[in-house]
Amino acid sequence: MPPQIAAATGDGAWLQAMVDFEVALARAQGLPELDVPPIDPVEIARAGRPSGNPAAALVAALDSPDAHRGATSQDVMDTAAMLVARRTLPLIHAELAGVAATCAALAREHRDTPMVARTLLQQALPTTFGLKAAGWLLGIDEARGLLTAVPLQVELGGAAGTLAALGEDGLAVLGRLAAELELEEPVLPWHTRRVRVAQLGGALAIAAGALEKIALDLKLMAQTEVGEVAESAEGGRGGSSTLPHKRNPVGSALTIACAAGVRGAASVLTGALAQEHERAAGAWQAEWEALSRALALTGGAAASLREALEGLEVFPERMRANLDLTGGLIMTEALVPRLGRAEAKRVAEEAARSGQPLREAPDPTTYLGSAGALVDRALKAHEEGR
Amino acid sequence: MPPQIAAATGDGAWLQAMVDFEVALARAQGLPELDVPPIDPVEIARAGRPSGNPAAALVAALDSPDAHRGATSQDVMDTAAMLVARRTLPLIHAELAGVAATCAALAREHRDTPMVARTLLQQALPTTFGLKAAGWLLGIDEARGLLTAVPLQVELGGAAGTLAALGEDGLAVLGRLAAELELEEPVLPWHTRRVRVAQLGGALAIAAGALEKIALDLKLMAQTEVGEVAESAEGGRGGSSTLPHKRNPVGSALTIACAAGVRGAASVLTGALAQEHERAAGAWQAEWEALSRALALTGGAAASLREALEGLEVFPERMRANLDLTGGLIMTEALVPRLGRAEAKRVAEEAARSGQPLREAPDPTTYLGSAGALVDRALKAHEEGR
Amino acid sequence: MPPQIAAATGDGAWLQAMVDFEVALARAQGLPELDVPPIDPVEIARAGRPSGNPAAALVAALDSPDAHRGATSQDVMDTAAMLVARRTLPLIHAELAGVAATCAALAREHRDTPMVARTLLQQALPTTFGLKAAGWLLGIDEARGLLTAVPLQVELGGAAGTLAALGEDGLAVLGRLAAELELEEPVLPWHTRRVRVAQLGGALAIAAGALEKIALDLKLMAQTEVGEVAESAEGGRGGSSTLPHKRNPVGSALTIACAAGVRGAASVLTGALAQEHERAAGAWQAEWEALSRALALTGGAAASLREALEGLEVFPERMRANLDLTGGLIMTEALVPRLGRAEAKRVAEEAARSGQPLREAPDPTTYLGSAGALVDRALKAHEEGR
Amino acid sequence: MPPQIAAATGDGAWLQAMVDFEVALARAQGLPELDVPPIDPVEIARAGRPSGNPAAALVAALDSPDAHRGATSQDVMDTAAMLVARRTLPLIHAELAGVAATCAALAREHRDTPMVARTLLQQALPTTFGLKAAGWLLGIDEARGLLTAVPLQVELGGAAGTLAALGEDGLAVLGRLAAELELEEPVLPWHTRRVRVAQLGGALAIAAGALEKIALDLKLMAQTEVGEVAESAEGGRGGSSTLPHKRNPVGSALTIACAAGVRGAASVLTGALAQEHERAAGAWQAEWEALSRALALTGGAAASLREALEGLEVFPERMRANLDLTGGLIMTEALVPRLGRAEAKRVAEEAARSGQPLREAPDPTTYLGSAGALVDRALKAHEEGR
Repeated sequence: MPPQIAAATGDGAWLQAMVDFEVALARAQGLPELDVPPIDPVEIARAGRPSGNPAAALVAALDSPDAHRGATSQDVMDTAAMLVARRTLPLIHAELAGVAATCAALAREHRDTPMVARTLLQQALPTTFGLKAAGWLLGIDEARGLLTAVPLQVELGGAAGTLAALGEDGLAVLGRLAAELELEEPVLPWHTRRVRVAQLGGALAIAAGALEKIALDLKLMAQTEVGEVAESAEGGRGGSSTLPHKRNPVGSALTIACAAGVRGAASVLTGALAQEHERAAGAWQAEWEALSRALALTGGAAASLREALEGLEVFPERMRANLDLTGGLIMTEALVPRLGRAEAKRVAEEAARSGQPLREAPDPTTYLGSAGALVDRALKAHEEGR
Repeated sequence: MPPQIAAATGDGAWLQAMVDFEVALARAQGLPELDVPPIDPVEIARAGRPSGNPAAALVAALDSPDAHRGATSQDVMDTAAMLVARRTLPLIHAELAGVAATCAALAREHRDTPMVARTLLQQALPTTFGLKAAGWLLGIDEARGLLTAVPLQVELGGAAGTLAALGEDGLAVLGRLAAELELEEPVLPWHTRRVRVAQLGGALAIAAGALEKIALDLKLMAQTEVGEVAESAEGGRGGSSTLPHKRNPVGSALTIACAAGVRGAASVLTGALAQEHERAAGAWQAEWEALSRALALTGGAAASLREALEGLEVFPERMRANLDLTGGLIMTEALVPRLGRAEAKRVAEEAARSGQPLREAPDPTTYLGSAGALVDRALKAHEEGR
Repeated sequence: MPPQIAAATGDGAWLQAMVDFEVALARAQGLPELDVPPIDPVEIARAGRPSGNPAAALVAALDSPDAHRGATSQDVMDTAAMLVARRTLPLIHAELAGVAATCAALAREHRDTPMVARTLLQQALPTTFGLKAAGWLLGIDEARGLLTAVPLQVELGGAAGTLAALGEDGLAVLGRLAAELELEEPVLPWHTRRVRVAQLGGALAIAAGALEKIALDLKLMAQTEVGEVAESAEGGRGGSSTLPHKRNPVGSALTIACAAGVRGAASVLTGALAQEHERAAGAWQAEWEALSRALALTGGAAASLREALEGLEVFPERMRANLDLTGGLIMTEALVPRLGRAEAKRVAEEAARSGQPLREAPDPTTYLGSAGALVDRALKAHEEGR
Repeated sequence: MPPQIAAATGDGAWLQAMVDFEVALARAQGLPELDVPPIDPVEIARAGRPSGNPAAALVAALDSPDAHRGATSQDVMDTAAMLVARRTLPLIHAELAGVAATCAALAREHRDTPMVARTLLQQALPTTFGLKAAGWLLGIDEARGLLTAVPLQVELGGAAGTLAALGEDGLAVLGRLAAELELEEPVLPWHTRRVRVAQLGGALAIAAGALEKIALDLKLMAQTEVGEVAESAEGGRGGSSTLPHKRNPVGSALTIACAAGVRGAASVLTGALAQEHERAAGAWQAEWEALSRALALTGGAAASLREALEGLEVFPERMRANLDLTGGLIMTEALVPRLGRAEAKRVAEEAARSGQPLREAPDPTTYLGSAGALVDRALKAHEEGR
């Protein structure tokens, strides 16, 4: 995982976000600027254990009568979670943009590079590598759209969600706090209305899944027997100490591993939607680590795949050779208009039985349908979506 | 589960959707209108087993040389899935709208009904039942927004996703088919780009979770010792043969049970994002039942909760009595401005120790902060969102 | 899914199990034999909705003053669940035994059939098809052991788990009921102690995963470019209407699809472990469908894979050809003892660079290590475990 | 989480386990004792990234021609995983034993303490706190049994699982390595046969769920309106800075939060059962973090609950008061033998309608059925199981 993504989701980042909440809260109330001493995240975590969350320990460490005025622990933690998300998402988006850019470049460069399409892992018909890459691109762009659509909202409700400790000023402070932290202002405090948290988890899981789809195709195409792509071997990457000839699809494997972890973490967030009354006893506390892991591992998946794609070697000649592997049998469908379905089937079965090439089969590159036009559509959508 | 939701997601509904695809596909190509004989869904499922999906069996049953021209099995199944979703979602939305309407009515009626807010299931501070209901409402409205945002797209790609069997007409037929079926036209065929399927599953899981949050609060409020609400006992509902005095929160319980099932089904869809090459061997086939169950159980959750809410009895006097249960201790925070934090804490601890009421405590209804204004915000957002 | 497994987990089977509980309960108390009228499962399900489970409706349909004496709804449903499991598991075990028998036969027959071992989908070293099949066998046998170890217990506790309505006879009736139904007698009623239900779900998910591992290997080996096995094409199986040359690994695909469904259903059971007090409001009711689906889909996975394996064609000549695909590079490790690690690596890299075969490489069949002995160990363990 | 559990599952513990494998492997082959220099886990993790796992980096750091002879990266990682598990499980078991001991003490002490049984969160019938605690105890003991039953096996197969690099000595070295590390010897290497890993994850999830069941009951009993138990307030535990009167069930909440995390992590392990060929590209790499989290969070759940239970205050007088809350209505079932079902129902309904106590109701403590005998059975089973 890239160090900056690990850092953005680590204990220090959470503590900083909590401090930022307290500082902004004081400002939003026109209180004196908070004086923040150096604070050790490990110590805060330890000190917070008896009260079940680190907020009270932080407030104690701030040692100011104005700190935390009008807020409750959950306000600190929930706003901090959204700040952590808002600071990590650009790092994830940068990796996703890198993935998309490479997919777009592959789609453009290989718009007309023929390869075989495989259904249920059996060779089916000709397609192009450009169309495959265009499909990858569109999946990533769709996932980016979902991630971007998640509202990241400030949380301020006080102990009961009524903003009572702020007297008449509750809603005004809420608005100023949102502006101060550059987070959205919610209609209501969301202590136990966790739709946006689960939405964020779901969007991360879908982004990870869109990445995993690409990694899955890459590792299948990189198989020794298929050989259509290889991840970079630069700097010993993908090497094996015992097996010097291997070119392991390491980036793809790590992407897939990370995606599995994201799903596990995101399932915790979906499972935490039902929270009791005005603050949950358990479901809320389960979110912190799950959200951190979901963010970090999505970033890890994206970074691993970006590296794999940027170093990818593509072998069009192997794609072509694989196209010819069945001796034209994959062209049977193309014969139907000329020979009729029954006759096409008959000659194909005869060729399959005899092991001879299917002489009637036209060249695969003549049967690519709308592949090129579809690539153009995907690239256009990608350009417009930026 | 409401019979019409069961029907909309059952075998018959899937078969009808598959037939509708074939009929529309012929129309989109200007072919003669398909003549559809009576078809038995059970027989089609059985006959489809050897090829791994029922599409080929349907095509055989249609017995027309024009049926299915240009399409592959996955085109039929994927489009049928989206038709099933498009036909079931209005039924789900109707139930969700009913839930939202009742929540809005409760928020309005009980805008100023005081009750105790509970954090970690401990009494914390005063709030209003209206604010609680407003939070429920907003959660449902947020979930409805996510469901509505899922694009339901037609699928047509032919065996390899290149539309090759349609020659020059591929993209035109794709557009006409989308219009014919009133589904969105995708940029590319989506044989193995399953973001929208997972997005639908995720949105259903979030809707189910938003419903479950309400059911959770209801069952807690309905506890014998709390007694703030009760589900309707009309027609023997919630009754127990052995325990005649009971008023079981049956609707809430079924909502929670359905929501758990939705999560299980939706996790299958998220887990199916990574599909191989141009058609998956396993992950795709896993979607059919999972999608049906996710739709049906979300509908079941919504219907159960709508019934529970529509028959809900609310007991404001018990809410008030519970507010007074701690003898004013929950008002400690309200003393802070007047007495200072230390002194407020001291008198509260003394009262708690002695078991005497906290004499200094003001009436809970004087410490509701922005509760009323927040209810108004939520109702306004609800009205505007319609 | 085999019809008998569908039937064993369907509504009729649940109703029968519920009736069996009531009949046995009367016998265990020495009451007159219950007279059971014909009962419609659909009608019972509908009538049971207001009370949140079908047990009360069944008792009403039995129309006997002695029916259900001493029991509560949950006793009926939980015992019925265990009876459904006990009646379905032999069907699942029969399919698993079929899978294991075919794996054992493959391991025996191909004990010395060389093929290439693949790590991260890259050719690594020689192995044998027998060793691969032996690994499959052991996985199935391990999973069977876990399934067999799940205790299936009768449930009888009365409304509160105290057996109070049975007066002094509670424990005696519990013991006789267990004997009558041939289920284990639990130490305590298990209304909200769901370890055994979750254990059953977990064992089913593991069995499904062990099946999926085999299906995954099969679909990879069946790839056009690999061609080492093929599922049977008999009776049009695995065929494609549009692509007559294809041999789709349909059984493997369905196995994988079913396994995904089992995981989703089993996750509901694990998530339902925390049930409130003496009967849960939601988590319990979520178990019924989840357990039925987990049982049915594990049976479906096992049956699909058994069919796939029983009809499997194995192509040792393709295995051999694939072994030679790298021109001996996969034998690099075998050179280390003779040439030393550095020199072995050098000659391998040179061969890889030049595209020439690695002349120093010995025949792959000379470097199979303990493969044969390991196959013998697995077969012995399999024999002993029966 | 207890620091020693965090340490036992952290990077340092993994590295130590990997080193222990290499040292034991040399011993098992009679090679010179490995000389292990100081190694930095962070550096190894970084250096291992290009090859997709840290094993090769470790071998390089060991800088000995004999290190790692005959093994592959997966042998190191898999054996290390089992060593980490074997070293962490005693810490988890100690916490679980503490939980069980406290439950047993509560069952013994409160064998005859009456309290109300609640079904669907409604008061149902009398029971005893002892019986409730006995149920908790049995759940923990069942979960401990499942955890103990998981075989922890050494892994040694070499690059392809054939032990080829060890020549004739493969099986002998495998046996000696198992003995050296005090792990079980497997029948076959288990590179891609992951039943035992998933079994471990499943057992951890069930243990966490059994803990969560107790925590759920505790937080419900600790509700202000119920007040039957309270977690310790010693040392400010469970306190709230803003709400000095609160006694938050912090230990229960953290237990529930941890259990949710365990489920998420364990689902990754179940989902990783299907691994390709002789080493997976993704599913295997996903296991490391998931296993560490599952172990650590189960330990965290157990430790939190042990603390909560050890400091638990029990209020039998509140249990008694709650028993009387319905004015005898919960005793309706007890009237059936004397009055008949119809008449019992009639008088209960009349009492409920009038709000008057049910005069006919006997004292709740006379209707406890076999509660005491059941407690004795559970305690006996607990004693015998030790």
